[in-house]
Amino acid sequence: MLQTFASPISALLDARAEGHSLPAGLYTREDVFEADLDVFFRRHWICIGLECDVPEAGDATVVDIGKTSLILLRDDDNEIRVMHNVCRHRGSRLLDAGKTIVSKLVCPYHTWTYELTGELSYAPHMGKGFDKECRSLKQVAFKSIGGLIYACLSENPPEDISHLEEVMTARLAPYDIANAKVAYETDVIEKGNWKLTIENNRECYHCSANHPELCVSFVDLDFGFDPDALSPEDRAQAEEHFALYEARTKQWEADGFPSTAVEQLVDCTTNFRTQRLIISGAGESQTPDATAASSKLLGTMTRKDLGDTHLWGHNSWNHFMGDHAVVSIVIPLSADRTLVRTKWLVHKDAVEGVDYDLEKLTNVWIATTDQDSELVARSHAGVEDPAYVPGPYSPFSETNLDKFATWYIDRMRAHGY
Amino acid sequence: MLQTFASPISALLDARAEGHSLPAGLYTREDVFEADLDVFFRRHWICIGLECDVPEAGDATVVDIGKTSLILLRDDDNEIRVMHNVCRHRGSRLLDAGKTIVSKLVCPYHTWTYELTGELSYAPHMGKGFDKECRSLKQVAFKSIGGLIYACLSENPPEDISHLEEVMTARLAPYDIANAKVAYETDVIEKGNWKLTIENNRECYHCSANHPELCVSFVDLDFGFDPDALSPEDRAQAEEHFALYEARTKQWEADGFPSTAVEQLVDCTTNFRTQRLIISGAGESQTPDATAASSKLLGTMTRKDLGDTHLWGHNSWNHFMGDHAVVSIVIPLSADRTLVRTKWLVHKDAVEGVDYDLEKLTNVWIATTDQDSELVARSHAGVEDPAYVPGPYSPFSETNLDKFATWYIDRMRAHGY
Amino acid sequence: MLQTFASPISALLDARAEGHSLPAGLYTREDVFEADLDVFFRRHWICIGLECDVPEAGDATVVDIGKTSLILLRDDDNEIRVMHNVCRHRGSRLLDAGKTIVSKLVCPYHTWTYELTGELSYAPHMGKGFDKECRSLKQVAFKSIGGLIYACLSENPPEDISHLEEVMTARLAPYDIANAKVAYETDVIEKGNWKLTIENNRECYHCSANHPELCVSFVDLDFGFDPDALSPEDRAQAEEHFALYEARTKQWEADGFPSTAVEQLVDCTTNFRTQRLIISGAGESQTPDATAASSKLLGTMTRKDLGDTHLWGHNSWNHFMGDHAVVSIVIPLSADRTLVRTKWLVHKDAVEGVDYDLEKLTNVWIATTDQDSELVARSHAGVEDPAYVPGPYSPFSETNLDKFATWYIDRMRAHGY
Repeated sequence: MLQTFASPISALLDARAEGHSLPAGLYTREDVFEADLDVFFRRHWICIGLECDVPEAGDATVVDIGKTSLILLRDDDNEIRVMHNVCRHRGSRLLDAGKTIVSKLVCPYHTWTYELTGELSYAPHMGKGFDKECRSLKQVAFKSIGGLIYACLSENPPEDISHLEEVMTARLAPYDIANAKVAYETDVIEKGNWKLTIENNRECYHCSANHPELCVSFVDLDFGFDPDALSPEDRAQAEEHFALYEARTKQWEADGFPSTAVEQLVDCTTNFRTQRLIISGAGESQTPDATAASSKLLGTMTRKDLGDTHLWGHNSWNHFMGDHAVVSIVIPLSADRTLVRTKWLVHKDAVEGVDYDLEKLTNVWIATTDQDSELVARSHAGVEDPAYVPGPYSPFSETNLDKFATWYIDRMRAHGY
Repeated sequence: MLQTFASPISALLDARAEGHSLPAGLYTREDVFEADLDVFFRRHWICIGLECDVPEAGDATVVDIGKTSLILLRDDDNEIRVMHNVCRHRGSRLLDAGKTIVSKLVCPYHTWTYELTGELSYAPHMGKGFDKECRSLKQVAFKSIGGLIYACLSENPPEDISHLEEVMTARLAPYDIANAKVAYETDVIEKGNWKLTIENNRECYHCSANHPELCVSFVDLDFGFDPDALSPEDRAQAEEHFALYEARTKQWEADGFPSTAVEQLVDCTTNFRTQRLIISGAGESQTPDATAASSKLLGTMTRKDLGDTHLWGHNSWNHFMGDHAVVSIVIPLSADRTLVRTKWLVHKDAVEGVDYDLEKLTNVWIATTDQDSELVARSHAGVEDPAYVPGPYSPFSETNLDKFATWYIDRMRAHGY
Repeated sequence: MLQTFASPISALLDARAEGHSLPAGLYTREDVFEADLDVFFRRHWICIGLECDVPEAGDATVVDIGKTSLILLRDDDNEIRVMHNVCRHRGSRLLDAGKTIVSKLVCPYHTWTYELTGELSYAPHMGKGFDKECRSLKQVAFKSIGGLIYACLSENPPEDISHLEEVMTARLAPYDIANAKVAYETDVIEKGNWKLTIENNRECYHCSANHPELCVSFVDLDFGFDPDALSPEDRAQAEEHFALYEARTKQWEADGFPSTAVEQLVDCTTNFRTQRLIISGAGESQTPDATAASSKLLGTMTRKDLGDTHLWGHNSWNHFMGDHAVVSIVIPLSADRTLVRTKWLVHKDAVEGVDYDLEKLTNVWIATTDQDSELVARSHAGVEDPAYVPGPYSPFSETNLDKFATWYIDRMRAHGY
């Protein structure tokens, strides 16, 4: 007899076999989705946006994470703030989705008015004795790490974000992301579970068959390969690539640009990995011909040959290059729908049509994101099929998926599931 | 560990703090919604329509309340009937949504045929011994109160409807709503819980910031204000208004028009409030310039200066004026969707374009309903946010919300929740 | 106090009264729907398509049954295969919905490649020790019975399919359905539970009021009538019809065409009924004028006067006539949505516009399916209404519904519900 949700989530966690994809229910069940939101999007640090989303005092933008709506703004002292978009009177949304410029936050319902610090300054009809001080907007813990805003909705944010902060602050400094310009932004809704979106992003095993645009500048060897399966010609090419990678890394480090891989993927709370990788072909940027899309480089960069500093988190992936950066943020919408928000960043003074060509800038990752969206949908439909059984990850090119699955199981257990 | 619906509904009821809006789950949870339908839309009297929806024998209209579909019709003896729109054979719907004219109710599936009284008169293929008598359409308890149809889906309708009946029969008599004409009708689906729709309707604290059209004829002071917050000028204006209100009420009553507030809002089963209020400005009607929209007055009315007799129930609000009336009925569709059905009534002989201008007639409440729909959506999105906590009602202008919330909690408990 | 799903499914099964339609929950509840999928669409044999859906080696078509996606294909040895459309790596769908031609089954995600037998022949990045043999595509049990493909998703398919196989192999032989041509195909989504779709199909009580096109060639008397309700004229007509039916059946059988009714409807696992019936009017085919739509007859047929061999299963109905056949397959989509897939078959060499007119061929069953879709929607809306109570089946023309309901209850119980 079939029973919906017959097994507790813990039984699904127990059922996971090392080296294999997750049991179906962990991708498809609504109760698991609610647990995922609770554990990975409330209790962990998540990337929600950028300092340069709100470049000037009074700039505000709304970021929705599930039913939680956040206001990311820059206050009158030029400080970043993250607050809940919920009036303290009867709960009305203060701001609509999207970007706006505000001098105060005025609730449209009954005109309760908050300063940009979140302080309640006006609440008509409430009488003389009313205590405004305990009715400030609820603040959210956040950190700007190299201009990327990480927030945590819990009251006890994990402490090991410090490692990410330490590593990335140095690596991202020359790109000055805090002062970049968002040249373009897309929201793509993938028809799949957020963990399939992340798994898809954590391997390049599927690149050669699916991402012709990305493969111009990406070297899929960097993400693992089966040495025994290489032809003599491919082996020679691989050896050449890794020799070059070693030489470059040494030179980059000597020039003061941290490059070696740093990862915190298992046995940790905050999950991340970074590494500076060679860009293939012309070697400058993830564009159709691998040359820079923007003639004005990011931040204080003076070189286009510093490769691609990539950074993965459990809800984001990022590529920082000399001329531009691409930041992708993953926001689960339901067990089978996931928003992928992608932002293309250039120097704040770069002018479209003069310093950069927008089509060239966005071509590769628009195409790649669409292709991945197809693959995630195909994958999700399959794991929903009663005939699905968890399959084996490649021991060469899917080891990061195995680590992600292991981390996922561990974190769920750590939170009592 | 987050558990969906971990707490029973009773825990939510217990958690409600006096003077504050309801705990989130009471607005958002599906199990609470099912309970609400059961308690407030099956066991209580609800307003479902008007006698003048079916002015002539054979007129029928379908009213859907959740999955329940009702036929409101006028039978061959000119009597109103309310019956379930479910064939007693295999359950097929007899009538489609909307209005129609019928001589019998013939099921389109197998032609079982019912008289307009609900009696089964023809059932082919059922054989000689088949007992048609026990297969009449199921009747629904209803009352016409001044032309408004109140129905109760339960077999034990609450008895204290008698107070509403007694009060309103007298007040509504001169308007003769039973013989009015429905000049216009709108269905607006609000993206919020039905209780937020009602709360929104029970205060005018939000009027000045949101309802420019309504504020021409409405006096928001009538719905409460903070005396200490008034400027000397506003105070003078308020005093003038209440002096006028007192004088008018005295005169109206002396002229035979009951006007004083009557309410049954807490410690009761059937919830209602009525009062005759002054119309502002030109003083005649809720129109863009507060003058009457129809030159032919309702019923036996001969005066345009009798203000606005308003009537609130837990699923309706109504305004009866000299020239026209506006009746709004609230039908919950899901925890987060609510239908607001509004009907504009004029004298049955009033002719559009001659006696009344439709745009003038409908302008204020079309605008107001759309504005309220926005506010309810904004409110619902907020109460769904995990950051929402119940906030304080104004002790001046939101006391009726507090009473509604208290009544809601009491009624839920009375039905075993 | 109302409790969603308060009663177990077994209580609903117990509540069913003989001779009456099912308790509402069996048509409407999501948990019952999941149970139905499990019992009737996983553990029983279901009709999924036709041999002639994939006429040549390399032809493949995807059939989705709930979340289960099946590949029906013809392999290089011209053998039919039914396999799960789920890659054994990370579960990706191999083929998209619809028909295609394949030489291998290549997963688009990571290019795992399967032979048309399902054998995994290529899996890059998996290393030398990887055992491909245990990663073949999962096979599904199936039988071709006279060219109709019956599949069973369970590992223990019911054995009493043998009776259906034995009876229908002989009856269908002259039509050679395996080598027919699919001239047309429609997918209609009915807004109702799959059991209401089947109940609708199992009686012709509703035909005279709803199916003018079908009634040209159908004789509704064949599906039961109330003898006492016939007028003398109707009685004479009925007697004439049944005398003719007896004579024809005798002659058909003598000519070597099995015709008498065979049924296995209760006290069995596999549910079916077949009978050769007279076609009314011109007597040849279910077309607007009851003459054949195709001048080239099916298979080895040489006569147009062999009536209509109909075949019912719990998820299909079929009509085999001299010139064409109509096959309908029922696939539940949700508790309140059901896909009806209909295929019109002609001789494989019949040419549209030359041998047959497509409009004439498809007219009757396109119209009938649309009419039934309306009736099923109307029926489903009614059984969802809290006012619905199970009603009595006609003891004359709805006996097959009573048998279906009885079989449904028995099969649910047999599987532990």
